[in-house]
Amino acid sequence: MSRLLAEKLIRDIPDFPKPGIIFKDITPVLQSPGAFQEVIDQFAEFASERQPDVIVGIESRGFVFGAPVALALSRPFIPVRKVGKLPAETIREEYALEYGVNAVEIHTDSILKGQRALVIDDLLATGGTARATAALIERLGGRVVGYSFLIELSFLHGRDKLSGYDVQALIAC
Amino acid sequence: MSRLLAEKLIRDIPDFPKPGIIFKDITPVLQSPGAFQEVIDQFAEFASERQPDVIVGIESRGFVFGAPVALALSRPFIPVRKVGKLPAETIREEYALEYGVNAVEIHTDSILKGQRALVIDDLLATGGTARATAALIERLGGRVVGYSFLIELSFLHGRDKLSGYDVQALIAC
Repeated sequence: MSRLLAEKLIRDIPDFPKPGIIFKDITPVLQSPGAFQEVIDQFAEFASERQPDVIVGIESRGFVFGAPVALALSRPFIPVRKVGKLPAETIREEYALEYGVNAVEIHTDSILKGQRALVIDDLLATGGTARATAALIERLGGRVVGYSFLIELSFLHGRDKLSGYDVQALIAC
Repeated sequence: MSRLLAEKLIRDIPDFPKPGIIFKDITPVLQSPGAFQEVIDQFAEFASERQPDVIVGIESRGFVFGAPVALALSRPFIPVRKVGKLPAETIREEYALEYGVNAVEIHTDSILKGQRALVIDDLLATGGTARATAALIERLGGRVVGYSFLIELSFLHGRDKLSGYDVQALIAC
């Protein structure tokens, strides 16, 4: 893992979104064109080696990174969104939170049987959203050929939930 | 307004998100690398002529278009988000909905006094969110040098709310 410009820019916000949580704020990375481009370049390199048919971005910070990578590789960009946001026919996958459940959706016509999908999000925390996204892709007959994250919160062991998958994380905290 | 690949791809979804509304689904544009790139190129051309210091994208479909334009112009990307999503110090601007109010937020350190901001979103409807975004930028001392939208719902007269601003809309419905 080489030293990225982004690494120095990510800032800790204590007690967000609730007391006791230290939130990794990536907005300073987006405010630095050089750092942002470097992240996209690293994602695009990892992605192109895995020859994906589609790039999947998870709402909503995953959109910020996923869309540029899709354009760089000239591949379709597929959004995975929270419940009730995608207007056409969707399938839904629930995942457990610390308290309760959450869910993500994908359009059923977004991925064709046999297509190779690369999934992008800003942060790998517990891996719940990422794992649910793989389930959506696989239910449509697609195959996850890799995950790219800007940040991995190693102490939450999200990578364990993604065992068997090829995971890129540019910065481990 | 020249004919874009995107125009044929946008699909109408009746009764979404509620009965009587015809929703413009842009996901097929994102799924077509050529159409998506063409939209980004048109946005980038409009933007570069206005020499913005920053590109502002409105959550969350505005992220999909705004981030690639920011990268294309090598300018900072600034997210405007719904309430409670941005972790650092923010200011908030409310705007009226058909029933009730909604609000958007921006980080106070995202725009410096005197900076020129170009605002990007997928859709100009009533213009409430777009106008509130200008208010946020102006409260920070910035100046809105243009708005770019993929789609304008002309019958909602959102452009009236943005009078005095320079508005690009690639497709009028």
